[in-house]
Amino acid sequence: MKTITVNLKERSYNILVGKGIAQNIGAIIRRLKLGNSAYIITNAGIKRRYGTSLRKSLLKARLEVKFKLIPDTEESKSLKTAYSVIEDLTSFDRNKHIFIVALGGGVVGDLAGFVASVYKRGIAYVQVPTTLLAQVDSAIGGKTAVDLREAKNLVGAFYQPRLVASDVRMLASLPLKQIRAGLAEVIKYGIISDAALFTYIEKKYKKILSANLEALEFIVSRCSNIKAKIVERDEKEARGIRTVLNFGHTLGHAIEAAGGYKGYNHGEAVALGMLLSCDISERMRLSGTGAAKRIENLIRKVGLPVKISKVSFKRIIKAHYRDKKFIGARNRFVLLRGIGRTKIVEDVPLAVIKETLAARM
Amino acid sequence: MKTITVNLKERSYNILVGKGIAQNIGAIIRRLKLGNSAYIITNAGIKRRYGTSLRKSLLKARLEVKFKLIPDTEESKSLKTAYSVIEDLTSFDRNKHIFIVALGGGVVGDLAGFVASVYKRGIAYVQVPTTLLAQVDSAIGGKTAVDLREAKNLVGAFYQPRLVASDVRMLASLPLKQIRAGLAEVIKYGIISDAALFTYIEKKYKKILSANLEALEFIVSRCSNIKAKIVERDEKEARGIRTVLNFGHTLGHAIEAAGGYKGYNHGEAVALGMLLSCDISERMRLSGTGAAKRIENLIRKVGLPVKISKVSFKRIIKAHYRDKKFIGARNRFVLLRGIGRTKIVEDVPLAVIKETLAARM
Repeated sequence: MKTITVNLKERSYNILVGKGIAQNIGAIIRRLKLGNSAYIITNAGIKRRYGTSLRKSLLKARLEVKFKLIPDTEESKSLKTAYSVIEDLTSFDRNKHIFIVALGGGVVGDLAGFVASVYKRGIAYVQVPTTLLAQVDSAIGGKTAVDLREAKNLVGAFYQPRLVASDVRMLASLPLKQIRAGLAEVIKYGIISDAALFTYIEKKYKKILSANLEALEFIVSRCSNIKAKIVERDEKEARGIRTVLNFGHTLGHAIEAAGGYKGYNHGEAVALGMLLSCDISERMRLSGTGAAKRIENLIRKVGLPVKISKVSFKRIIKAHYRDKKFIGARNRFVLLRGIGRTKIVEDVPLAVIKETLAARM
Repeated sequence: MKTITVNLKERSYNILVGKGIAQNIGAIIRRLKLGNSAYIITNAGIKRRYGTSLRKSLLKARLEVKFKLIPDTEESKSLKTAYSVIEDLTSFDRNKHIFIVALGGGVVGDLAGFVASVYKRGIAYVQVPTTLLAQVDSAIGGKTAVDLREAKNLVGAFYQPRLVASDVRMLASLPLKQIRAGLAEVIKYGIISDAALFTYIEKKYKKILSANLEALEFIVSRCSNIKAKIVERDEKEARGIRTVLNFGHTLGHAIEAAGGYKGYNHGEAVALGMLLSCDISERMRLSGTGAAKRIENLIRKVGLPVKISKVSFKRIIKAHYRDKKFIGARNRFVLLRGIGRTKIVEDVPLAVIKETLAARM
């Protein structure tokens, strides 16, 4: 098991990455003194798979356990669901000392984190991410949010968990499509700051896709470490440092949104967004030769899309204006210098974006 | 004009207390660089009174202005209203750099602060409190919240404003009942930490009740200063220091809740809660002779209630169990030692609470 600490003074916490952590979670949580009653937010499928062992581990540590099931859809990440969870939590909370456990992927983690951030002005919560995407990205760093009809992640808080427990054994049962989606973010970490990780993925992508536990433990701990260091330096995305994590996300989000979140999943959209960022970088002569090609080759090899076919040009352009990171009509892109190196560029000309996009369709 | 700084590192801000500040608010806000578009949350009555001059001041400082009216009722402080405000805010926010102005009393301030805390994971907001209660208490310290059906202030955040602009001229038009409600909190500050302020109120209560601007400026700035110092030492109510502000509030909240928030207003309930705390202190032989009597005399003189007649004994006891500060069935009271001195006591016996309550009915 690897332990990575996110150093944020009184808000510091550990990320544990290993095989079989979930079985010992009760004792680990007990030591953190988060409360005496675990309110576990999850969905029915995940509960069926891990509910019994998790409950057992928590009960053994003399912690009360209550499961709250939310539907396994993107729509669960809404203010409406948050509201209903809070009402349920309130009726359960009779002079207890409750903490929340987010057991699931990004939807569960973001929703549960948001509920924890606002309930009684903030109670403790633990992330137990069950997807690769959540283990390497969304469970770390305290960005909680829910969606509104108008836009994603519009309502939320920066609110750090007290523990992230990433059990890579939980990834073994994931559908290939979900491993791929997570792998898009792993490739992103390689591109933005870890050339050795990038090379590792080039060599071991077949092992990763077949859920080899050693390979998964390696990439999850490596990515967790990168994200932890970035979050430490820019907890609230106020200093521009955390921006680098948005590599591939500016247009990636637009591609996701353009398909009404039904065309491409987040990982696929990020893969396409990263390719578009590479294309823009080449057009603007920012990146060295070969880097963009290597990235495209890897993305193709792992089975992520390299051409945009499921959503229209027009919708992507329209959606990209609504990115909440735009301030006063300026756009901001993380562009490629080389593998492991990026550059933040503001005001990329719309013409360049359009040409790049058209060439990928 | 008095300037009181709340020192919270990167979250520090000023409280301005004076006569006619609202007229210059545009220039003051402009200097803080909070954004270019002011989204003012208020109600129709307050907008009618101050809307024009506020808009003028903001426009003069080249700030865009949009008013959002919420109903002037306690029910506006709900997650439902927050939701509708956020939807409106979203539709207004098209590539703007928005900040929020809370123009009103505690309901507006708590709601607007909560919306600011969660919108885009936190945007800047300014408190322009228009009641004595809000100027001395709720506008300061970043405790934002909305109510659920089940309990008050159950959902919220610790999220500091960027400025509190307390214009005592705004208090001149308040109904006497509202001045009195605020005065209950002012008396509280005297009791918990400022014997000289207490003596000042004893001498000048008639001036205060007739909204003399000098007297109001004195008490608002004095109370703001006390609250600022307490918030600095315990921003998130984690160190027990901020607890002292709850003097009179444990049973005060129960009295408010017992009447469905229609029996006694907050100030009246706090006055009764303070008297009950004094009674408990005497029963437990904590306070010196005379202090409790002085407090009761002052509360009576300013026209706040000293006997509980509008709500039932049973309902108060029932409601007091639901206080969100109770953890694991332990209660916690701020009790009286003398004017300016309190003591926090846990596990006050229920029998003592009941006897004390019965004696005040």
